[in-house]
Formats: sequence, structure tokens, C-alpha cells
Amino acid sequence: MINKLVDKIKKTNAPVVVGLDPMMSYLPEQITKKAFDEFGETLEGAAEAIWQYNKGIIDATYDLIPAVKPQIAMYEQFGIPGLAAFDKTVKYAKEKDLVVIGDVKRGDIGSTSAAYATGHLGKVQVGSKIYSLFDEDFATVNPYLGTDGIKPFVDVCKEENKGLFILVKTSNPSSGEFQDRLIDGRPLYEWVGEQVAKWGEDHMGNDYSYIGAVVGATYPEMGKVLRQIMPKSYILVPGYGAQGGTAEGLKPYFNEDGLGAIVNSSRGIICAYKQEQYAKFGAENYADASRQAVIDMIEDINSIF
Amino acid sequence: MINKLVDKIKKTNAPVVVGLDPMMSYLPEQITKKAFDEFGETLEGAAEAIWQYNKGIIDATYDLIPAVKPQIAMYEQFGIPGLAAFDKTVKYAKEKDLVVIGDVKRGDIGSTSAAYATGHLGKVQVGSKIYSLFDEDFATVNPYLGTDGIKPFVDVCKEENKGLFILVKTSNPSSGEFQDRLIDGRPLYEWVGEQVAKWGEDHMGNDYSYIGAVVGATYPEMGKVLRQIMPKSYILVPGYGAQGGTAEGLKPYFNEDGLGAIVNSSRGIICAYKQEQYAKFGAENYADASRQAVIDMIEDINSIF
Repeated sequence: MINKLVDKIKKTNAPVVVGLDPMMSYLPEQITKKAFDEFGETLEGAAEAIWQYNKGIIDATYDLIPAVKPQIAMYEQFGIPGLAAFDKTVKYAKEKDLVVIGDVKRGDIGSTSAAYATGHLGKVQVGSKIYSLFDEDFATVNPYLGTDGIKPFVDVCKEENKGLFILVKTSNPSSGEFQDRLIDGRPLYEWVGEQVAKWGEDHMGNDYSYIGAVVGATYPEMGKVLRQIMPKSYILVPGYGAQGGTAEGLKPYFNEDGLGAIVNSSRGIICAYKQEQYAKFGAENYADASRQAVIDMIEDINSIF
Repeated sequence: MINKLVDKIKKTNAPVVVGLDPMMSYLPEQITKKAFDEFGETLEGAAEAIWQYNKGIIDATYDLIPAVKPQIAMYEQFGIPGLAAFDKTVKYAKEKDLVVIGDVKRGDIGSTSAAYATGHLGKVQVGSKIYSLFDEDFATVNPYLGTDGIKPFVDVCKEENKGLFILVKTSNPSSGEFQDRLIDGRPLYEWVGEQVAKWGEDHMGNDYSYIGAVVGATYPEMGKVLRQIMPKSYILVPGYGAQGGTAEGLKPYFNEDGLGAIVNSSRGIICAYKQEQYAKFGAENYADASRQAVIDMIEDINSIF
């Protein structure tokens, strides 16, 4: 799957992933109204609205980008119907041949991590039958529990040709509270990065490992160091745009081959029609606004090479 | 909710929580067969079997214990039908007046943590309507992202009178890989424990905070130190029994008032009928075996006082 991701990044010339993190407040009125007319002001109505919104954005952008990254929390907050919309979104994006990074930030010990890995990346046995579940291509994972929390994910990734992005240095303001603390003179995130590189050796693709890392765009100095610590790990970079990361600041996240990083934008793309720059599209053409925002983001990022 | 948990622990004289972490291999044949007869070898069939299994255990133990802790990964691995079984289990346990600790180990940044908090502990607005979702009483949370990953959970807890157990020192063998690393001469888990105590000051119950901690039974020396660092935080203690923690080793997790800790057992209770000690009950009476295992566990733990 890492090979597919790299191929698609090369083909689209777009080291970009669109974060499908819908909030009800993002949705154009016509979508919400239609869903509520059909399902009422119910969780099913909210889930339908979110799904239609996502479908519009995927339809308008799938030919430009290699991947999407639905953030499961935004669906989980609408309970079971919300999770069904997540499921539908993942499956639809895969039909469009997009790589799907499930931003699920799961992580637990042994058999529990194995169950999460099964749910998100693997297959489950029921009697004599085998079923795929959410079936994302990649999942984000939290490293706080150490190797025996990660290994069950890696095992499933090997079986299924799938991959991970492990949280190393997150984009939020207080990420340094624990992640930056010095251990033997080096910050914790470097130690985690070293482990990611080690875990990654165990599951290599052609040029990059199936086991990548999350490093926020908001900390380019740290990105530079982590790039060197994990030369074979793809870096998923959140925090561009709305959170303050700039294109210039993204340089250190890439290798000299122009690969090695994929930059996420969520709000900046999916909610583009609400920004002044794209207001001319209007709410009814929100998906066209998202398409234009993707084109502009790709241009912005490619300007650094 | 922490007050209710403490009251129930006092009333039952049982600082014990039953972990509802069902695996298909745990289920007695008669339950699986009945579910498959009705729903086929489908995800719905697996989910029905798990739900019936849980119901049996809850019915047989709810008068003895203060709380249950369903581990969502075990349900998530069966996709949407599995999550519906989680939902049903939470609601049923609450009907039986049990406190429900959702072992979800979620954690993300700002608005994303807020969405998880809404999904698991809060309520969501859809148009003019308000809905409860999974509605657990407590949730477990991962601290790796720092304060702005935790605060949205605390905010929802305050609104809803609910609580958290934050991962401090986990019970698994490799938990030390990052958690034990020394920062200014003290292990990371102590720094996390200090933050838990600080976060907890912001949301106090009568004697204990709504914000508790997870500290594995497998590390009693560390439990002792953490008990002192977080005197007002309830400690959720996994790792008793199957993972190797002993009753004697649990002493340091409690305060002098005999409170302050609640000990989890999952496999040891829900799969008791497969152990030699309880084999006499037979698979058909698996729930009675679980009841006996709960009685024995309570006696074992109370022997330390």
C-alpha cells in the first residue's frame, strides 16, 4: 500500500491528502436540509448529510489527489449512524481508487491492539466466514504503550499489505508537554522516531516503509531532525494551513527525492467555500470550491521544490 | 459520577470492575450456535452472540460489583454490528445501575478530542434536537498529546458529571519503553501522573477527583509512587490475575481509607468457566462460573486490608 501511495503521489504530482473531518457547521444548508427532509433531525439525518457532503468533495477532487484521511472522531460523535457514514466514506473513496488513511489514533496492549488492527485494517473470522470491516489502507496509531502495543498492528499490516502512521510529534500547541521532554539529552519524540524507524525496517516497501510517522507542520525544526532519524518512513504532516504550518516550512519533511512526506489539509479544503478567497463559488458549489483549494494547495506545496 | 462509583464500591465492598472484553473463542457453544442459527455466520451473528454472552455475565454479577469496563476494540473488530453490541452492552449495564467505564483509549487534539468526548460521554446537537450517543460514565484517555488533547474531555465531563481514567503507567511488558524513561531524573509516568493530579483539581467530587488514572497491577513499586503523586485520583488497575498482578501487590494502589483504586479483571471473570477451578460449572452455566469468580476475586482483594 505504501508503494501504491508513492506511485499515486508521483502520478498526481501532489504530496497532499484531504482530511475528511466534517462538522455539521461546515455543511451547506442545501445538503443538511435534504438529509433532514428525508431522515428528520436524527443521527441518521446527520450521518446522511455528512456522507453526501463527503461524496461531493471526493467526486470533485479524486482525480487530483492520491489520498483522503477521514478523522473517525467526527463520525463517532454521531454514534452508530455516524460510524456507518465513516464506513461508507472509506468504501466510496476506495472505489475512486484513493488511498484511505483512517485517522483513528488507536493504540492499546497486545490482544486489544490486535482487535483494533483487525477492525481497521484486517479481516475477522465469524464461524467459517471471513469479513472485511472498516478496511482502511493506513491507520494512525498512538505509541504511548510501546512495542507490544504496535506489533499487533504491524503484523496485520504485513498480512494485508497495509500501513501505519505512528504519532511522533503532533501539531497541537501543547504537544511538547510530554513529547519534547529531554531523555538522555534528546526529546522523547526523537526516541519515538527511532522506534518508528526500527518498527519500519520490519515491513519495507520498494523505497519506503509501510510504517510511517505523524509529524506536525507546525514544528519544522523538529521535522528536519525526524526526517533524518526516519529516512525510510513516510511522514504524514498535519497542521498545514488552518493550524499555521506554511509551505516553506514543509521543506524539511521531504527527502531529496522530493518524496517522503504527505501533507494534510482538512478545513482548508473541505470548508473552502466559507473562506473569502473561495466565497465566489457559493454554498451550492462547495465542492468546486474544494477542488480549487486543492489545486491551489498543490501549487503552493510544489513551489518549494 | 465519581461519587456514585465510590458509593457503589463502599456498598458492595468490592473495589472491582469486570472487564467485558469478549472474544469469540470465549463464548460457550450454545450462545454462538443460537446466534448463528438466527443471523447466520455474519457480523450480526457474532455481535448478537457477544451481546447475549455479556448479558448473561451482567445478570449474574451486577449485584456484586460497582462497575463494568467494556473494551471497545473487542466490538470494533466486528465493525458496525459489533459497535452496536457495545452500545447495547453499555445501555444494559446502566439499566442495571452499574457504572460503565468505556475502555476506549481515545485521545487527539482540540476539536477532535472534543468530538470523541461528545461521542463517548456527551451529547450531540442535530438541528434542534439533542442526542446521547454511547454515553459511558467514564472513558479511558491517552495523554501523549498533552493538555489540549485532554481538556476537551474534561470540559465534557464537567457538563455531564462524568469522569476519565488517563493512561499513566500501562500494564503491558513494553510499557516502560517510553513511560519509564527518565526526564530530569524522574520517569515519564511520574510527570504524566503529576499532570493527571493537576487536571483532576479542576473537576473534584466529594473526596476524589472525576479525573482518574490507569496504573497497571504489574508494577506495584510504581503504583506506590503514583498513589502519592495523585492522592485524589482514583486509580483504575488493570493486569490483575491473567496478566500476573497479585492481590498482595495491589496494596500500594489504595489509600489509607481503603479507597482510591478499582481493580479490573477481564478474562479471569468472563472466561472463568474455562479455568480448571471453575470447570465444574460447565459451559452452559458460564455466567454462574463468572459469579463465583467475582466472589473469589472480591475476597482475594479484601484480604489485603
